[in-house]
Amino acid sequence: MIYIGIDVGGMSIKAGAVDENGNILYKQSCPTGVERGYAAMIQDMARLGAEVVEKSGHTMDEVKSIGVGIPGIMDQRTGIVPFCTNLAWHDVPILREFRRYTDLPVYVDNDATVAGLAESVKGVSAGTKSSVFVTLGTGVGGGVIMDGKVFSGSHGVASEIGHMVTVAGGHLCTCGKRGCWERYASASAIIRAGRLLCAEKPGCALMDAVRGDIRAVTAKAVLDLAQTGDEDCTRIFEDYVYHLVVGLTNLINIYDPEVIVLGGGVSHAGDFLLNAVRALLPKYVFFKSMPYARVELATLTNDAGIIGAAMLGR
Amino acid sequence: MIYIGIDVGGMSIKAGAVDENGNILYKQSCPTGVERGYAAMIQDMARLGAEVVEKSGHTMDEVKSIGVGIPGIMDQRTGIVPFCTNLAWHDVPILREFRRYTDLPVYVDNDATVAGLAESVKGVSAGTKSSVFVTLGTGVGGGVIMDGKVFSGSHGVASEIGHMVTVAGGHLCTCGKRGCWERYASASAIIRAGRLLCAEKPGCALMDAVRGDIRAVTAKAVLDLAQTGDEDCTRIFEDYVYHLVVGLTNLINIYDPEVIVLGGGVSHAGDFLLNAVRALLPKYVFFKSMPYARVELATLTNDAGIIGAAMLGR
Repeated sequence: MIYIGIDVGGMSIKAGAVDENGNILYKQSCPTGVERGYAAMIQDMARLGAEVVEKSGHTMDEVKSIGVGIPGIMDQRTGIVPFCTNLAWHDVPILREFRRYTDLPVYVDNDATVAGLAESVKGVSAGTKSSVFVTLGTGVGGGVIMDGKVFSGSHGVASEIGHMVTVAGGHLCTCGKRGCWERYASASAIIRAGRLLCAEKPGCALMDAVRGDIRAVTAKAVLDLAQTGDEDCTRIFEDYVYHLVVGLTNLINIYDPEVIVLGGGVSHAGDFLLNAVRALLPKYVFFKSMPYARVELATLTNDAGIIGAAMLGR
Repeated sequence: MIYIGIDVGGMSIKAGAVDENGNILYKQSCPTGVERGYAAMIQDMARLGAEVVEKSGHTMDEVKSIGVGIPGIMDQRTGIVPFCTNLAWHDVPILREFRRYTDLPVYVDNDATVAGLAESVKGVSAGTKSSVFVTLGTGVGGGVIMDGKVFSGSHGVASEIGHMVTVAGGHLCTCGKRGCWERYASASAIIRAGRLLCAEKPGCALMDAVRGDIRAVTAKAVLDLAQTGDEDCTRIFEDYVYHLVVGLTNLINIYDPEVIVLGGGVSHAGDFLLNAVRALLPKYVFFKSMPYARVELATLTNDAGIIGAAMLGR
């Protein structure tokens, strides 16, 4: 049997035919075309899924299920996506819509959850039973695997780790609360700190690096300079790592997983980030005499969405 | 079959013979006598366990297991209690020590975990599959039940929810970190705020209530005055509820349980506390359109330790 995995983002819809070990047999993509509305997008997902199966040399009879990773939340009780900002979706009956094109079981879950599942099947957390995948991107997302299965809680709202408050009364978050972890541990947090630095100290190396265009500041620009030892950017990096570790330690105190996997844009800083996190973590872990989760970098990057979505049906 | 449940605290060792539905058939207690060392304490536990079985009209042949709740952590891999401050235990081989007195299976877990299990068998969370029990006492402890079973994580250090950081850079905690939830959500937090109030405003109603003895300030004294509308104590109470709700919301965003059960000293404030928490919670929940955990007060209070310990072996 094989599986169809579909990874939907604001820019593209990617689909893959995936075997039961998480190997992609064939993959293909098309633009998302958010402005077209959900019906056209879901039609494309179904079409693309069928195409990759055919091009992989298999038939639809051999497909066990279709899995979809979305940049939003799925209400598993109703089969409806209440909201998904990047796709401009609001109360989209995704399962019912898929029924127009297929009778196969369709599984839908959050993209961070799906990426976490992929890592636990075929990536850095393969072979473990419990892991937490943390995406450090525009926001902070989480994918929690427990007992080898996706953990979504009693109402499907678990693993919203980016909105765990770590700085009560801190920065205002888009969700309306103050001090959510993602205000401090996302790529956006690094960008904001970098922009503020440029605004307050126009002669800094970061301002040079972005040729005086504050809006051009990226997390990568800040991290690259930190890595060269630039004092201002090192300070931003150290503050970032502190807040990242505070949240990771909370996850250890709460989920106590075997592995924490760091993914998303900031994780591309690689060992520079990983070593800093690993160096600080022991200071914040509660039970210093007990073993605790190892922290690793995600390995699947681009294919994680397809693989994980496919594995939802395994 | 029946079960022996033993609840060990700094002051007393309580034991009960408990049936499979969590009903106490007979219970008895003796002083803990911390100064005697662990061997004498564990001998008393075994003796007391045998006594309650006999007095309940049963024989040891009918006992399926012995469960023990301790105010500390148990390393389930080694059978050793690494530390348990209130009992002055350090690296105590509790399972090996029990072998001197019995061949029955012995299960040991943290007292908050045990109380959470008790509530889920016979208390306010009975009938649910996932719940988080939060003890609001000297510290903040947690007992997490998932899929009807005690959740202890991969290394046995899960559910240390009191040491989840909610105020990064905040008050220094006994664990060495800053801003742990229990610094803000425990009974001790209310006491500290009350003492500070008395120190800074000696003419306040709280100072009157404790007859000028700042050290006599209790959480109950503060909460009682808040309930009568005293402005100073209401401010302390509101700040307390805010920090409590911040952490509860984190638990909802992370565990997404069916029920959160509030226990421990502060929970004796009853509906005054519960109503304030329930009123503030919706403001902080991330997915406002999705259902989330209901918050309830613990119901078993004194017997939770015996019942939950017994049910560890069920």
